[in-house]
Amino acid sequence: MPLDPWFTMYKDKILKHLISSKNGFTSGAELARGLHITRAAVWKHIKTLEREGYAVEAAPSKGYRLLAVPDILLLDDIKQGLKTGTIGREIHLFPELVSTNALAMEMASTGAADGTVVIAETQTGGKGRLGRTWISPKGNLYISVILRPGIPPHKAPLITLMAAVALTSTIRQRLEVQAGIKWPNDILISGKKAAGLLTEMRAEPDRVKHVVLGIGINVNMDMAELPVPLRKLSTTLSAETGKKIDRTVFLQQFLVELDSWYQLFLKGGAAVIEAWEMFNITVGNRVAVSGPGETFEGMARGIDTDGRLILKLDDGTSRQVAAGDVTILKNRDMKNAE
Amino acid sequence: MPLDPWFTMYKDKILKHLISSKNGFTSGAELARGLHITRAAVWKHIKTLEREGYAVEAAPSKGYRLLAVPDILLLDDIKQGLKTGTIGREIHLFPELVSTNALAMEMASTGAADGTVVIAETQTGGKGRLGRTWISPKGNLYISVILRPGIPPHKAPLITLMAAVALTSTIRQRLEVQAGIKWPNDILISGKKAAGLLTEMRAEPDRVKHVVLGIGINVNMDMAELPVPLRKLSTTLSAETGKKIDRTVFLQQFLVELDSWYQLFLKGGAAVIEAWEMFNITVGNRVAVSGPGETFEGMARGIDTDGRLILKLDDGTSRQVAAGDVTILKNRDMKNAE
Repeated sequence: MPLDPWFTMYKDKILKHLISSKNGFTSGAELARGLHITRAAVWKHIKTLEREGYAVEAAPSKGYRLLAVPDILLLDDIKQGLKTGTIGREIHLFPELVSTNALAMEMASTGAADGTVVIAETQTGGKGRLGRTWISPKGNLYISVILRPGIPPHKAPLITLMAAVALTSTIRQRLEVQAGIKWPNDILISGKKAAGLLTEMRAEPDRVKHVVLGIGINVNMDMAELPVPLRKLSTTLSAETGKKIDRTVFLQQFLVELDSWYQLFLKGGAAVIEAWEMFNITVGNRVAVSGPGETFEGMARGIDTDGRLILKLDDGTSRQVAAGDVTILKNRDMKNAE
Repeated sequence: MPLDPWFTMYKDKILKHLISSKNGFTSGAELARGLHITRAAVWKHIKTLEREGYAVEAAPSKGYRLLAVPDILLLDDIKQGLKTGTIGREIHLFPELVSTNALAMEMASTGAADGTVVIAETQTGGKGRLGRTWISPKGNLYISVILRPGIPPHKAPLITLMAAVALTSTIRQRLEVQAGIKWPNDILISGKKAAGLLTEMRAEPDRVKHVVLGIGINVNMDMAELPVPLRKLSTTLSAETGKKIDRTVFLQQFLVELDSWYQLFLKGGAAVIEAWEMFNITVGNRVAVSGPGETFEGMARGIDTDGRLILKLDDGTSRQVAAGDVTILKNRDMKNAE
């Protein structure tokens, strides 16, 4: 339903009144007088707010009182006090997108600035790595960041690593939850997926024109929104902390962290790789890699300066892995050790 | 001027008549009768053909005779008898584009098939490597090919090498001109630029989604169309052979050659690298490389399996170069040898 802008304006003004009077009541007569509308019109706007998820108590003779606000992101709130250098100088927020990455890639091609951020409340065609679907219900964070780092394409995996470090650091410091990075692009908590990264780029063979860094974070979603097979493999920040997360605050904290790590990355990848090794849960484990057309196992030894996983194979040789799905063979290792 | 389709149809029918009667005359009365139009209308269509570049002799009592056809590409001619597997299964031809690569990148993003070819007679915003301008007057070939090779991004330089091999091979075999490849993306004849390549891709860090291979070939252009400083650095196939090149035939020959080399590339890069080393004029020479933020010299020793140039520096160490502009220091070498 397209909203009459005047209607929206009145509704927003009523909302501001209710918010500013905190837990107190505001009378319908007062609201009507202040806005020069009828009391019936005030009532109509209150009903609209309720449909949008606001809980409003209406008490005869007392008036209206705000009980709860819906969990929606507001651009002003996100920008409010956001202290970043590059990331988020421009932010675009949408209730729904096919895919934040797809829009960001388009915006990047037509000149959007370094650090531009695209956020959606839900995605109807969210994508994971290798063209897989990223189920995107409400209550989470779906973020894409346009970056113009001036690197050759073979350095692009470091962008994924850098973002993984920033996100893991935010989760550990702000929520005090022991998140870890599974190479190349998953953030796990207690062995379950809490977030995923999808880096895409447009490049010439020797030069990246732009990168879009996509980040999907399971924050407050209802796990019932996921298909059954995914539920036991996934978790949310809310489930891990036992409380509802303020997405706006967490988003701001993450953007600030990402901004610092991006600056560090631009000065050279060493700090990123060092932090990554600290936060990662892949290195030191026996892993199975299923890559394009083959599957093999080995001990994960570290990552190289291009962000490739270094495996020691059973025949003693080393192998650098640029692509593939990694399974950490912890149980198998324990079995071997028995 | 938007053309009336009926008008175009009559004009094309008259053209077919003139072409089919080879060097003979066709009377205006006969053309008028055949098309059920007036002789004045026939005359009007003949004038239009002349404006398009056809030379038509009009002799009283004899009629009309075709003396010369303009040098324009026609889609039917290009497709006629084109025997390729993947490349050119779909061909899009335009009198003018901003950039064949830009359109092809867009088409690739929206699902265009592997091997789709985009051709323009001229480009108003043609691009070379690193965002440079590629001056694109009429008479040449401006081709972009959409490829979906399923390779990791660090293998993308091999696509440029593969195309350089295909084009050099076509020039050498079909025109008997000694073209050579200057790493990474130029085709030179007698030390002057005859063609350039621009590979662009959309990729995830471990997987290329699509590549657009752009090829600009100086075929028949008037050198006066180039800015003065470029004239002494450039040449055309026509200037090197001393005759006007049939662009349609050459284009077909190149697409066939590209198709075979692409199949070879998909089976593994070894054959491409071997052929590249045979056709290249960089390896074995002392070169100066000006890369991002630095310039250095060394002996070009070969290319590695990712298509990077291997340099032996003066301190005896080796260096693999992924990006940069290469100047071949032949004269300097000769001076050194004196």
